[in-house]
Amino acid sequence: MTQSSVTGLERRLARRILETRGDPRLRIVLWNGEEIRCSDAPPIGRVVFRDRRLMPELLLHPELGLPEAYADGRLEIEGDLPTVLKLVLAAPVRRTPAKRARDAWELFRRRSKSLQRSRKNIHHHYDLGNDFYSLWLDERMAYTCAYFPRPTASLEDAQLAKMEHVSRKLWLRPGERVIEAGCGWGSLALHMARHHGVSVTAYNISEEQVAWARARAREQGLDQRVEYRLDDYRNVTGQYDAFVSVGMLEHVGDENYAALGRVIDRCLPTHGRGLIHSIGRVQRQPMDAWIERNIFPGSYSPTLPEVIGILSPHDLAVIDVENLRLHYEKTLEHWLERFEKHAAAVEKRFDPRFVRVWRLYLAGSIASFHVGNLQLWQTVFQRTRSRDLPWNRAHLYEAR
Amino acid sequence: MTQSSVTGLERRLARRILETRGDPRLRIVLWNGEEIRCSDAPPIGRVVFRDRRLMPELLLHPELGLPEAYADGRLEIEGDLPTVLKLVLAAPVRRTPAKRARDAWELFRRRSKSLQRSRKNIHHHYDLGNDFYSLWLDERMAYTCAYFPRPTASLEDAQLAKMEHVSRKLWLRPGERVIEAGCGWGSLALHMARHHGVSVTAYNISEEQVAWARARAREQGLDQRVEYRLDDYRNVTGQYDAFVSVGMLEHVGDENYAALGRVIDRCLPTHGRGLIHSIGRVQRQPMDAWIERNIFPGSYSPTLPEVIGILSPHDLAVIDVENLRLHYEKTLEHWLERFEKHAAAVEKRFDPRFVRVWRLYLAGSIASFHVGNLQLWQTVFQRTRSRDLPWNRAHLYEAR
Repeated sequence: MTQSSVTGLERRLARRILETRGDPRLRIVLWNGEEIRCSDAPPIGRVVFRDRRLMPELLLHPELGLPEAYADGRLEIEGDLPTVLKLVLAAPVRRTPAKRARDAWELFRRRSKSLQRSRKNIHHHYDLGNDFYSLWLDERMAYTCAYFPRPTASLEDAQLAKMEHVSRKLWLRPGERVIEAGCGWGSLALHMARHHGVSVTAYNISEEQVAWARARAREQGLDQRVEYRLDDYRNVTGQYDAFVSVGMLEHVGDENYAALGRVIDRCLPTHGRGLIHSIGRVQRQPMDAWIERNIFPGSYSPTLPEVIGILSPHDLAVIDVENLRLHYEKTLEHWLERFEKHAAAVEKRFDPRFVRVWRLYLAGSIASFHVGNLQLWQTVFQRTRSRDLPWNRAHLYEAR
Repeated sequence: MTQSSVTGLERRLARRILETRGDPRLRIVLWNGEEIRCSDAPPIGRVVFRDRRLMPELLLHPELGLPEAYADGRLEIEGDLPTVLKLVLAAPVRRTPAKRARDAWELFRRRSKSLQRSRKNIHHHYDLGNDFYSLWLDERMAYTCAYFPRPTASLEDAQLAKMEHVSRKLWLRPGERVIEAGCGWGSLALHMARHHGVSVTAYNISEEQVAWARARAREQGLDQRVEYRLDDYRNVTGQYDAFVSVGMLEHVGDENYAALGRVIDRCLPTHGRGLIHSIGRVQRQPMDAWIERNIFPGSYSPTLPEVIGILSPHDLAVIDVENLRLHYEKTLEHWLERFEKHAAAVEKRFDPRFVRVWRLYLAGSIASFHVGNLQLWQTVFQRTRSRDLPWNRAHLYEAR
């Protein structure tokens, strides 16, 4: 039997894989060029198996097998990558007892309360180099879900609109003090300081991001009102009028939610407000194993009750929740488009596998938000008894 | 010792009661006219004990003692009743182990999955007579939290605005079918049918309310598009584009949340949306014992995670949550003001105790929303994978 031959068993397995995906517009091309199809519907995408060893790998490790093979170049996807992945992900995952047991183990296994581990996890992703991120993020280096005033808005406008949307939800007033936990490259802190007259203390444990943010604050003459601290959110001290955290909770891990709750509690006086912006899921499940291994070690996307569970022990009431899932899909489409424009530069700096890993991560995230495997919630909260809140939400939608 | 004399122990107990309330602007007047004060601050209210037996009752049954004595007229409150109750409720309740154990027992004891018990509970409150409710509700007989476009809006305008706000959140389009669980006197169903061109099937187990609602639908020529069914929400059948429930969840009881979730699940196709409007609490605790006994038997105010827990097992994702706590306080202020205008008529129809019970319920509810013991959440949801949702929430705030 040569490498190029296909056995009857392999053919049946390929057909079985196609059938479990449930979409007749997907096809599989085997290593000998043979195409497996479930119907004659015009194909939207082809998954090309370059290597016969893929078959047992996909069966043994379904969640890791496909993305790893893609990253290695042993599996190719023909057609628009996000579109094909949407079809792949659209099939509902069966939550069998075995899957539940595996999920429970994964949720437990990855727990870590170590500050050092947090630094290592964050360094792994965010210290890949500001040069790298500046190739495909917007000019302000916002690496979280944007808010598109219209679906056709530019990424730059949408990131600006997100910062304004968050600032308005926090109901900031000039002279107030804001604490930001996990500030990325620091653009939200600068926006709040410049446009809402507040002073901001912003925490981040990524050295490269903090260096970049401090330079921007100095350039813009805001370094007296925005202080970036290279430190863990658990070390936050002081009292503030508002707490904000955009895209950090995903890295906190549910084992540290109680600690985060205590941080928020000691930060906020009676009139204090807060906002947590985070990717989430409707049902509790571990992070995708491949993403956790290759992209975001130590990460976890909470359910909305888990987010609220951070707050309620401290008498913090939910004021407003908004689901921006479709906005994250759109944000990621912009990022992937820009990434592809610079793929050659990225490959030169890193290697071909790195490009394929990131392409799959961005396209897979588009697909995950598209089919609703991931959600994005902005949760606004306040002390249960506080009356210092706007009468309604109309102010979020007034022309500036 | 005569009835009018006061012992040193009684005096110390009265002072102790005052101190636990923690507000120096409250005073206690004993049955002999003697005033107990903790400070010389100008008083905002006086609690008058007409009867020495009150003292042991308040110590033995703190939650039931005060309201029962007020209802019986053995305890009087001088000053503006809601204002005094705000001071009384502002003191934080200590969640001792004994209190937690009592709460757990109360939460368990009141569970009932019986349809007959639900009918009895609803009959107790809602079948007091449409004449009674029409004395102090708005003209459309909306008996749930209104939405005040401005704090100074009239109750009539605010109830209309609430119906429009809910309709917009449901993103109704002409020709769609809506299921309403717990429709009260039916005004929301009529509003949705008239202003949004939908047909509505509305369930309610209160005979008086359904009779009133059917008459209104006929009067307004909407009886072909709005059907009121005198039946339990658990008997809902059929598929609809949208599910709505305003102010019913409080009567469902958490023992029936799973059943409600299954009803919503079988009602809604892939593109379906839904809204649950309910009183809630930040931390799980039983209904106030006096309110449960005198006003709303079988009721329970859920936490927001409990509301979400109805939805998530069925792959329903939260799209939007809005906390309207201050609007319910305002609504109740209007109700109490109207109630007081007709107190003589109510007393004639019922009796003096009935008037005092309802006065305390309305004023106490104002105070509970004021201090944040109660919250009001509107929760909008949709199938996890649905993309049939508005791009953002700006449409809720557009001029009509």
